[in-house]
Amino acid sequence: MLSKSQISFVNALHHKKYRKEQGLFIVEGTKSVNEFLRSGYITDRIFCTPSASSKLDKIPQYIKLHEVTEAELQKISLLNTPQEALALVRIAEKTRPAAESFKGRFILTLDGVQDPGNMGTIIRTADWFGFRDILCSPDTVDAYNPKVVQATMGSLSRMTIFYAELGEIFETAQMPVYGAFLDGAPLPLERWGTEGFILLGNEGNGISDASARHVTQKITIPGTGGAESLNVAISAAIICYDLSARR
Amino acid sequence: MLSKSQISFVNALHHKKYRKEQGLFIVEGTKSVNEFLRSGYITDRIFCTPSASSKLDKIPQYIKLHEVTEAELQKISLLNTPQEALALVRIAEKTRPAAESFKGRFILTLDGVQDPGNMGTIIRTADWFGFRDILCSPDTVDAYNPKVVQATMGSLSRMTIFYAELGEIFETAQMPVYGAFLDGAPLPLERWGTEGFILLGNEGNGISDASARHVTQKITIPGTGGAESLNVAISAAIICYDLSARR
Repeated sequence: MLSKSQISFVNALHHKKYRKEQGLFIVEGTKSVNEFLRSGYITDRIFCTPSASSKLDKIPQYIKLHEVTEAELQKISLLNTPQEALALVRIAEKTRPAAESFKGRFILTLDGVQDPGNMGTIIRTADWFGFRDILCSPDTVDAYNPKVVQATMGSLSRMTIFYAELGEIFETAQMPVYGAFLDGAPLPLERWGTEGFILLGNEGNGISDASARHVTQKITIPGTGGAESLNVAISAAIICYDLSARR
Repeated sequence: MLSKSQISFVNALHHKKYRKEQGLFIVEGTKSVNEFLRSGYITDRIFCTPSASSKLDKIPQYIKLHEVTEAELQKISLLNTPQEALALVRIAEKTRPAAESFKGRFILTLDGVQDPGNMGTIIRTADWFGFRDILCSPDTVDAYNPKVVQATMGSLSRMTIFYAELGEIFETAQMPVYGAFLDGAPLPLERWGTEGFILLGNEGNGISDASARHVTQKITIPGTGGAESLNVAISAAIICYDLSARR
């Protein structure tokens, strides 16, 4: 049985303001819920239909479990076809990352990416290639947006997302910044080195001027066709692939 | 001035059945409309606001031009913010492709891809890498779906899309079929050869059994992280990149 106040509590979490206030975000589907249960994230409560119980991992006692009907789940789900379980998970409050913690590796860095589907796909792809964290400018879409979470297909559970002023980090870290532009050095690069930020910009406007000032190496995915540009998630994936194939 | 019957005529084209009946599909935005005007596709009519006229190419006399208000454009647009122009363009009726026409090159081939966003992104990416056509199984999402057209960002205007039974084509063409699986030979391949089909499957179920029988080389994008799979448009992009970087 789902009360009216429970329904409005969950639905409010579709909005960033309430997610920040409550420190919670929504994860849907038994598969994703299991991935968060196995992760470093803390699950606060789970709403699930009777059919979900055989599919969910053993649920620790401190997690509140609400059994609901399919019709009730529909009322709090954003999916056209709700997938048996919906969890509220704690937003991992990350203090500002110490720039030194990035030394010796490559950091995928997003500067104003806006589309939740792109953001989710980038997180899923970064997880595939073994990245463990993503650095985002403050105006990048919220990674805990339900559409982002859905598009990550569970990969968010294995990823740490930092939001910070990129310029400050770039300045302190003193590492190469590889920026994706339309007029850079064509991939594959002769050498990638051993560390650096891989910077991708906004869907329409690309990398901001403020970030571009810190770019030490402009890179470009060579194309011979007619398209003016590539989707940002596609660019991120090709760069991640190229980097991982060459190391 | 837009009549009620014009509004329902355009809105009916959101559905595949009516697109097939009328042989028309919708293209939105001055930039995309211009790209179709410059392409081999035939534009039938254009609805545009007064502000669009300075942005559109010279429009041949045989194309019907309807000037509309922004409010009228909103009634036929699928976009939250209509972009000054909406064209109805003729579906290029392709006869079944002769398998021999594929000899000597690589053909991007989709087996049951369902999501319009993925399909549109694949067309845009294929255009970037200079592919000129895409071969699709009959159950692949319709390339003239307005959401697909939008996601191609104009690239559809430079691309021919064939829908055909893949098995028959594979059998007649007698070319290598490279299929994207989770357990294939890791990219980069030692050698790609000079021709072949690059086969990608459905978002949830992958390549169908019927198509898998024709695969001569299973390929995989190597990953070291936790994600179970990559999005199909991401996989297509990485394979296109790898192929184009190695030729």
